[in-house]
Amino acid sequence: MSEIPMYAVIMAGGRGTRFWPRSRKTEPKQLLDILSDRTMIQETFDRVHVCVPVERILIVTTREQAPRIREQMPQVPVDNIISEPFGRNTAACICLAAGRIQREDPDACMWVLPADHCIADPDRFRTIVGQAADVAVSTNELVTIGIVPRGPETGYGYIMCEPAQPGSRACRVRQFHEKPEREQALRYIASGDCLWNSGIFVWKASAILREIKNHVPDIYATLLPVADAWGTVCFEDEIERAYASVRSIAIDSGVLEKSAYVLAIRGDFGWSDVGSWSAVYDIATGDDNHNVLRGDVYTADSRGCLVHATGKTVAVVGLDDVVIVETADALLVCRRDRSQDVRAIVEQLEKKGRTELL
Amino acid sequence: MSEIPMYAVIMAGGRGTRFWPRSRKTEPKQLLDILSDRTMIQETFDRVHVCVPVERILIVTTREQAPRIREQMPQVPVDNIISEPFGRNTAACICLAAGRIQREDPDACMWVLPADHCIADPDRFRTIVGQAADVAVSTNELVTIGIVPRGPETGYGYIMCEPAQPGSRACRVRQFHEKPEREQALRYIASGDCLWNSGIFVWKASAILREIKNHVPDIYATLLPVADAWGTVCFEDEIERAYASVRSIAIDSGVLEKSAYVLAIRGDFGWSDVGSWSAVYDIATGDDNHNVLRGDVYTADSRGCLVHATGKTVAVVGLDDVVIVETADALLVCRRDRSQDVRAIVEQLEKKGRTELL
Repeated sequence: MSEIPMYAVIMAGGRGTRFWPRSRKTEPKQLLDILSDRTMIQETFDRVHVCVPVERILIVTTREQAPRIREQMPQVPVDNIISEPFGRNTAACICLAAGRIQREDPDACMWVLPADHCIADPDRFRTIVGQAADVAVSTNELVTIGIVPRGPETGYGYIMCEPAQPGSRACRVRQFHEKPEREQALRYIASGDCLWNSGIFVWKASAILREIKNHVPDIYATLLPVADAWGTVCFEDEIERAYASVRSIAIDSGVLEKSAYVLAIRGDFGWSDVGSWSAVYDIATGDDNHNVLRGDVYTADSRGCLVHATGKTVAVVGLDDVVIVETADALLVCRRDRSQDVRAIVEQLEKKGRTELL
Repeated sequence: MSEIPMYAVIMAGGRGTRFWPRSRKTEPKQLLDILSDRTMIQETFDRVHVCVPVERILIVTTREQAPRIREQMPQVPVDNIISEPFGRNTAACICLAAGRIQREDPDACMWVLPADHCIADPDRFRTIVGQAADVAVSTNELVTIGIVPRGPETGYGYIMCEPAQPGSRACRVRQFHEKPEREQALRYIASGDCLWNSGIFVWKASAILREIKNHVPDIYATLLPVADAWGTVCFEDEIERAYASVRSIAIDSGVLEKSAYVLAIRGDFGWSDVGSWSAVYDIATGDDNHNVLRGDVYTADSRGCLVHATGKTVAVVGLDDVVIVETADALLVCRRDRSQDVRAIVEQLEKKGRTELL
């Protein structure tokens, strides 16, 4: 890995309803222990901390989630947890973090990663990030870590690349396409030079700030003063004012899709963004009947089920491919391949004003 | 209805695991409000009480269940609730009740019925019982109420009858066959003169005692002294001693299958013995999606489900024909047409010594 100091920025502002009834407004996916007995952000921290000292790990979250994050991450200095007044998508979040990192070390390299992804092979992950850092430092460009598509999924961003340089894993990005139609996704995959956008990036703080300034100058102008006020008495006022007006846009559409200086590197480390209960099932190791069971669960003639029970004894009889999730106040029973449709329930609860369940 | 006083004997000793997790050892089906907001025994009492005064309604149960029955039936004189030390099947239960009734009124007619059946048309039910009583009194025979088979179910007793007498609904019983094979059941149904045994009987107390004495004289000899000791200080000792030794046999196999004096009358009043959660679904009226929902339940793209929630909010997504039953400590999720296999779970719980769930 390059000799330049590496910072990690864990983005933990995400909300989402796809893990209802476990996920709630104040308890989004990254705060849940849905894959192991550690929460997803704890696992992400552990993965990063192997090669980045805790002083250089920043967590960006929202004010709403910050207390829970501090609870879950007692080893992270409070000052390293950046609380946005509210989520304003990734361009603002990354700009603020990059500004702060550049103040500490103008040469620093910056590894940006979501708090709620699953990595099957963390060693390989760190190797790839190290290679990405070398490329980012030597080229001064933005490096995104791409994933070889596993199928024509329409929920991901696709990255079309030039063929890789000989002797390098990195290749120049030709085009981004966020959530293409299935037919288009199939064509991209057939072309062979396409990757999924993992939302994991490596770049020098100065490089991403340069590109933010070029492509979303309003965000740069709004947030750099906030980063500069870090540690002063004005900071809370500054961040409050900045976030009241700053544009909400993803780093991908705001910067990466426009910049001429974007490279991709292929990440083959067993990545999943864990998009639904179905993905939790896919990631886990099942028993002899391919059931993934947590809690006090009994089954009879049932296969392919995911059961997460937190309190009650759960019995499953004669059912295949069903997701059952029990919490203190709610219960979800869902066909496994329909687990993304949990949102339909959340919408009903919203309509009925059942805020205690949201 | 005949002028002879009618007594009703509600048999409430049944146990059973088919309604787990609602049914438990101390909370069997008849004590559960699974069909309405009244429990099954309360509904049975209500049905009977329309035409039988409470003083002539006896409930026979086990010592274990008696406290709950007294709780649920405060209007029934405590003296009318007969507690067997433990269940000894229906011959003993009916012999004891008949002995007691005969002491009170040697001419009395006796309507015997289980506490845990569902009757869709109670008016019609009472009309048929009245006709049965007329036949029982005029013939001094045993009258069983039969149900026109709805299919070749193998879980019922079948009654083969002679053709009915002109001008009478009653017909002589030729043969009983408990739980025939499916092929045999089909043949019985094809013959046209067959009924299911409902376990509901009407006879004079003196007639059933005569037949008990003939066919199971040991039971008669053991239990008549108990009935005679009713109300004396010896009663508890007598019943304890009698039940320690009395034979456990059903009235059907012990008496009805052997007696030459058995008539059947066809009961067309929407009968169900409510044998499983699936039967609860069949009896209930569903919503537009044919879902039968009780409690705080939300559904999305789901049909044919039975959900009984007692505490939590339950969400069902993308599932057809599933039974979901939630209690304070357990949850059942079961394919609807497999609901009789709940016993497989109960067996697992027994093996694991989970008595708190049984």
